[in-house]
Amino acid sequence: MSYRYKDMTIINPLMRGGMVPRDVQEKIHTEGWTEVGYSLCFDCIEGRSSLVSKPGVKGFLDEVARFFGGDVAEHTFGCRGAQFAAMHAIAKYAQEHGRSKVVIADPNSHYSTNIAAEMCGLEVVEPPHTGYPEYKVTAEEFAKKIDAVKKSAGKPALVVLTHADPYYGNIAPVKEVGKLCEEEEIPFLLNAAYTGGVMPINMKEMKVDFLTLSAHKSMASLAPLGFLATTFEWSKKVFEISKAKPDWTGRAFGKKIPNLFGCSIGGIPLVSAMLSFPHVKERVRRWDEEMAKGERFVKAMEDLGDIMLLGERPHRHHLLHFETPLFWEISKVQKKGGFFLADEMIKRGVVGLHKGLSKHVKLSVYGLSDDEV
Amino acid sequence: MSYRYKDMTIINPLMRGGMVPRDVQEKIHTEGWTEVGYSLCFDCIEGRSSLVSKPGVKGFLDEVARFFGGDVAEHTFGCRGAQFAAMHAIAKYAQEHGRSKVVIADPNSHYSTNIAAEMCGLEVVEPPHTGYPEYKVTAEEFAKKIDAVKKSAGKPALVVLTHADPYYGNIAPVKEVGKLCEEEEIPFLLNAAYTGGVMPINMKEMKVDFLTLSAHKSMASLAPLGFLATTFEWSKKVFEISKAKPDWTGRAFGKKIPNLFGCSIGGIPLVSAMLSFPHVKERVRRWDEEMAKGERFVKAMEDLGDIMLLGERPHRHHLLHFETPLFWEISKVQKKGGFFLADEMIKRGVVGLHKGLSKHVKLSVYGLSDDEV
Repeated sequence: MSYRYKDMTIINPLMRGGMVPRDVQEKIHTEGWTEVGYSLCFDCIEGRSSLVSKPGVKGFLDEVARFFGGDVAEHTFGCRGAQFAAMHAIAKYAQEHGRSKVVIADPNSHYSTNIAAEMCGLEVVEPPHTGYPEYKVTAEEFAKKIDAVKKSAGKPALVVLTHADPYYGNIAPVKEVGKLCEEEEIPFLLNAAYTGGVMPINMKEMKVDFLTLSAHKSMASLAPLGFLATTFEWSKKVFEISKAKPDWTGRAFGKKIPNLFGCSIGGIPLVSAMLSFPHVKERVRRWDEEMAKGERFVKAMEDLGDIMLLGERPHRHHLLHFETPLFWEISKVQKKGGFFLADEMIKRGVVGLHKGLSKHVKLSVYGLSDDEV
Repeated sequence: MSYRYKDMTIINPLMRGGMVPRDVQEKIHTEGWTEVGYSLCFDCIEGRSSLVSKPGVKGFLDEVARFFGGDVAEHTFGCRGAQFAAMHAIAKYAQEHGRSKVVIADPNSHYSTNIAAEMCGLEVVEPPHTGYPEYKVTAEEFAKKIDAVKKSAGKPALVVLTHADPYYGNIAPVKEVGKLCEEEEIPFLLNAAYTGGVMPINMKEMKVDFLTLSAHKSMASLAPLGFLATTFEWSKKVFEISKAKPDWTGRAFGKKIPNLFGCSIGGIPLVSAMLSFPHVKERVRRWDEEMAKGERFVKAMEDLGDIMLLGERPHRHHLLHFETPLFWEISKVQKKGGFFLADEMIKRGVVGLHKGLSKHVKLSVYGLSDDEV
């Protein structure tokens, strides 16, 4: 078993925001963070990783919460773990308050949103997007769907919006939907897996109750790691400590948070996130430069002819989805069929196109130098 | 932020089985596995990490299943994720089959067992242990508790046993309890977080339905990572693929497993586990040597006077829990109180005693050379 892509240029949009800075990689290795699984746990006194102060996990989580405009943050097993934690609390809340089990999520949601809902016994319904070629999600359609759910099933349990979606890299109308949710008193979750750590976010300004983040997708970290940032009010519910008390020992698990599996451990991914955070904060300030670079790249690609960017224009995220009938035509006469494109690119030192696809191509040039682009 | 324990001798029993071999640490770094969060996902075709064949995750999981005597294994977010997945399936099964929501777990269980049950809406009851100084769990008490639950609440949903418990390092009477569960037709989960990867285990021989494993506790890996090994029969339930279908797009998430959050990612912890596995298989064959070393160590400790090993004798696990009134007396005249012991040990290059405790001491010499001991 060996790693095959060292020193290649990575253009997978899932990966660009998760590139670990070279100095962080070096530090992890030379300091010895990989010598034992639990290298973050030596000085754990309280029995939960998020309360550890040597190294300063607790302070780091406060910083994460503040950076995204939230009150409280906990680290989770990926953004999927954050979505699960929020929805687990929401399912309980909905039951206690006579609300429906319906989640309204955008039709461009990442699968982890739908799976988290399924895990929690919630049903997902979707307002439509605008279709080809922009596939935009609108607040108007959310308003209509909220009305429809209220009539058919009762008050929706939750509204979920994917900040930048994984299909087209569209930026969702967060403020408008946030305002709607506030008026309707429906909890609002924003999945910022593709945005938190690359572009500026303030959850309070957007009226977001739950912000879910992916450290390995967009915070320059090793997988698996995510964060859930929330308000003081919701933190009491979603981060509620254990109430379990087995009958014979009568033990209590006082500091453990059930929605986070008691303690979410953290491990080496959390170490990497803490070391990378100064870099993340700095690069978020350069988001406009990244967008300008993306725009130049899109123009150059489209100038090749028979290639078109899908999703909204102007484009506001680094995930670029091109329709490429040109490559599709070429693939028909290639022995490897649709695999030719990814394979040819790897020969040229560029990795990250989805293998087997050539009619459509998703890529990102986020964080690459002009030379690499 | 920096790592403070490089090149020290680690004696925390949670950590000894999770020491990452030096050559694995080197390989992770020099090959470049830490350069991007998703370094395992370049060649993912099917959309689930456990199906990736480059590198061979799928084959590795088959090997893990076979090594522990199971049919199917999936990697999880820690052993807690494995326990959650099993209990989530069990909660559904119990409901569908008119069984109670009661889990019978040993009173020495790790908190993650109790938290997983709490997450799944299951109630934990405990048969008693034998008390001071051995604290042993017996099959007889399990039989009595099963009867009691059957009378008061109906058929138990699940029986859980902690193979080696985290308090005293006792080995539970697995075969006897397994036989009982088979007769009573109650699913049986064995939490092998402290044993799988250090001592030989065959789940079929022990009539175990679910074996939960911790890679960072006992399989020489980085955190967070666990495995759930199970039988063909139960795998269809616990690893059932998603049935979600949101209304408007009608998307299906065909390869995703809800009890594993769709895909459990794996990341760098899984890379480390795959690289360490040859080492793990080899060391399991040397379990008897490790036990003999432990016995010599216990004798030497007790010969100091006023120190006694708690838990069963002869001791069959590397977790050693000593009652140390000697240290307690010393701590009374120390400025730092109970903290003196851990601090003094660190000065001597030995780390891993729980800070603040001196009346009782838990440690392990697993994998240490005679010199280090």
